[in-house]
Amino acid sequence: MSSEKPDQVETLRRDLLKACNTLSNVNLFQAAKWCAEALNGLPEPKPETADLQPEMLILDEDALLDQNKYLLAKAYFNCKEFDRAAHILKNCKTGDALFLRLYSILISVDKRATEETDGSINIGSDVVDDMNNRLSKIIQESENYLTKSKPNSFLYYLNGVIYNKKKKYALAQSNLYNSLKLFPYNWSAWQELISSLITFEEAINFITKVKAAKSSLSSSIMFQFFEVVVLQEFYQQSSSLFDSLNHLITIFPSFTFLKVQQFLISYHSLDYFQAESTFDQILVDDPLRLDDLDTYSNMLYVME
Amino acid sequence: MSSEKPDQVETLRRDLLKACNTLSNVNLFQAAKWCAEALNGLPEPKPETADLQPEMLILDEDALLDQNKYLLAKAYFNCKEFDRAAHILKNCKTGDALFLRLYSILISVDKRATEETDGSINIGSDVVDDMNNRLSKIIQESENYLTKSKPNSFLYYLNGVIYNKKKKYALAQSNLYNSLKLFPYNWSAWQELISSLITFEEAINFITKVKAAKSSLSSSIMFQFFEVVVLQEFYQQSSSLFDSLNHLITIFPSFTFLKVQQFLISYHSLDYFQAESTFDQILVDDPLRLDDLDTYSNMLYVME
Repeated sequence: MSSEKPDQVETLRRDLLKACNTLSNVNLFQAAKWCAEALNGLPEPKPETADLQPEMLILDEDALLDQNKYLLAKAYFNCKEFDRAAHILKNCKTGDALFLRLYSILISVDKRATEETDGSINIGSDVVDDMNNRLSKIIQESENYLTKSKPNSFLYYLNGVIYNKKKKYALAQSNLYNSLKLFPYNWSAWQELISSLITFEEAINFITKVKAAKSSLSSSIMFQFFEVVVLQEFYQQSSSLFDSLNHLITIFPSFTFLKVQQFLISYHSLDYFQAESTFDQILVDDPLRLDDLDTYSNMLYVME
Repeated sequence: MSSEKPDQVETLRRDLLKACNTLSNVNLFQAAKWCAEALNGLPEPKPETADLQPEMLILDEDALLDQNKYLLAKAYFNCKEFDRAAHILKNCKTGDALFLRLYSILISVDKRATEETDGSINIGSDVVDDMNNRLSKIIQESENYLTKSKPNSFLYYLNGVIYNKKKKYALAQSNLYNSLKLFPYNWSAWQELISSLITFEEAINFITKVKAAKSSLSSSIMFQFFEVVVLQEFYQQSSSLFDSLNHLITIFPSFTFLKVQQFLISYHSLDYFQAESTFDQILVDDPLRLDDLDTYSNMLYVME
């Protein structure tokens, strides 16, 4: 077993590097950040494996035809010109180009809704209707492509995000499951999946079903992260949670995300002193971290 | 001559594609956008040249060692966590990594200054001093690297930006010249150079000097863009301006940037009706364009 470990780590290093580039390429920045943090959370590579050239993304015929417009759309997106990004991608062929187009429209719709309602919760039903119409159009186009053309992990992910917004959780789950089967390294998709699982019973049923299907997904390391976070979020402090978490920590000794899980577990079990010392260590390792800082400062307030 | 043109266009297509990827890789989004628009402004590629795979960026030894941290820093940057991006790059070795670190610090300094002064022009001298100190530290680190290590186009560019902020235009010019000799496709660097040239005489002297030096820079197509914009911005409507502009338009028939130059030339010569019809055409081709819209609406107001 211990002789297999270095191999596993090197495979993971290669997969996470590639996944990070794939996610950056479709501008899923939060998911790319999670992958890059995981990659940097692995042990330092040995000198002989340090020369890992990033794998070239080979473009197929359609992607080559889309390439110049796709580059321009990404540039517009990076300059926060979402409508222009969507506009330039209109006649592109690939699933990724359609994803970037619909994702740009989604961001634009969200931004406009926030501006129109001025962040208020009490919004008129006409605004809600208009928003729902726009979201339905996005889903329609995405589903249309997925029915007629190739499967695409990011389009399934987008469907999952929108079905979650529409509170259609079963549809969200099946889309996110399809997305993750094709590309398991999108942590944002796992997060959407977790937020679509309303009760612990539902979560456990989902986990059991995935394991029974014996797809490659249930043997992916990403599935282990998912299980740990599900147990943590539903306050299920079993020994299997600790075993899984410790197993992941031996693989990713410097991955802050895992330390945050430890912090949240202590916090949920009201062990504030342990929680405080865990978070203090997180801030030593990653002093400019903002994620989860709100939970930490809430806890300090309660402790006073 | 006309038999050489297709080759020139294909070389340009390859160079701009590569340049766009290089600029995206260091998160210079505005410059990447300019390159991507130029790339899409070329005539449609012929079928046999349409299969242009993007060239792989081969990483050298230092870049391979920096790779994982660099990926994480870019992810933080894309999530607007600039201080964290700078922090993770602390011990990286390459010039590009140092550039991304210092560029992140610059954005963070600029943001803080805007927040502290609330956008007001009347700011206290202590705020100005503090800002100047921080800028000097960035320059110091960049110049230190350039003296001891390899030349790096983006570090020279950063120096040029900061010297412009400090109104030290001669220093800005020499740094931007060094930057552009190494990598001429950074339109943001040309723009900084133009804004460092205060009088038309100065601009012409600079152009003459570059041509006399017979470096490859003066024969680059980017130098032609630079000359056109200099003549346009200093209201110099010579026949050589129109010749150069028309020459560029034959190479880039769909590049909006060049049409905007035509618009600005008409506008500066108070030919508002021509200017209006040029801009109307721009809005037909690129209906969601925001750049230069302010000048256009100003003009419409004056015309009323």
